[in-house]
Amino acid sequence: MSNPKLYFEDFAVGEVKTYGPRVITREEIVAFAAEFDPQPMHLDEEAARQGMLGGLAASGWHTCSLMMRLICDGFVLDTASMGSPGVDEIKWLAPVRPGDSLTVRATVLETRVSNSKPTRGFVTFRYDVLAGDAMVMTMKTALMAERRSAGAAA
Amino acid sequence: MSNPKLYFEDFAVGEVKTYGPRVITREEIVAFAAEFDPQPMHLDEEAARQGMLGGLAASGWHTCSLMMRLICDGFVLDTASMGSPGVDEIKWLAPVRPGDSLTVRATVLETRVSNSKPTRGFVTFRYDVLAGDAMVMTMKTALMAERRSAGAAA
Repeated sequence: MSNPKLYFEDFAVGEVKTYGPRVITREEIVAFAAEFDPQPMHLDEEAARQGMLGGLAASGWHTCSLMMRLICDGFVLDTASMGSPGVDEIKWLAPVRPGDSLTVRATVLETRVSNSKPTRGFVTFRYDVLAGDAMVMTMKTALMAERRSAGAAA
Repeated sequence: MSNPKLYFEDFAVGEVKTYGPRVITREEIVAFAAEFDPQPMHLDEEAARQGMLGGLAASGWHTCSLMMRLICDGFVLDTASMGSPGVDEIKWLAPVRPGDSLTVRATVLETRVSNSKPTRGFVTFRYDVLAGDAMVMTMKTALMAERRSAGAAA
């Protein structure tokens, strides 16, 4: 990170921003599934039609990964980010289909300075992934970010 | 799913099984990061050395995706699976490095028949991902599976 523009202090509780869109293709869905999640519903149109999702749908991990790419391009790569300790919750609400146009709506739920390392803080987000107007996934997860003062002193 | 061998009834609380190993390569780490999570710590060895992880490490979403592949090959593809409603928790505990040999230890935490659709049930797992002996990720998530009687009747 050579010149981060955003530090812990730049995230305010209640702030909502939207990133994307990004269209997901059939070829991408099948390629991801072949590598990481080769269940018939993600890999094979005919088998998928007979399954509970009624047609080919992206692996939930593919949706997570594309969400990550959208927030990277949206703000994470401009942030003095120190990664994430994990995820509190993911809900896969509806299938992601070939041709869906995905956006991510990021809401800041909470910010707090680290107790053990006061030069950093945690920013907890809810990320809602939408395909058009339909919510297909929601996630709650924290980003660790440097505090501006810590960054300036570095 | 032509001939699933495992149904809801085949998962018992307390059961522990291990899947893998699978070695993760530098090329795979960089390729995944370039597509989905282009943060310097996942993409660039020199930048990664200067960062908080002290060297190149896989995206957490890459670790999730490889875990999925290991459990697919391990049992999910042989199960009358109906997918998953989501994830309760993911903790990224330690970096996954090039050359790490990953295994997944799956523990059945809970099984319950669906209230709304009694022909299926939920099997809640904890998946611990290990690199050698070190735990690098832990996750809690449920799989929906058909009940055996429902499957036999289909």
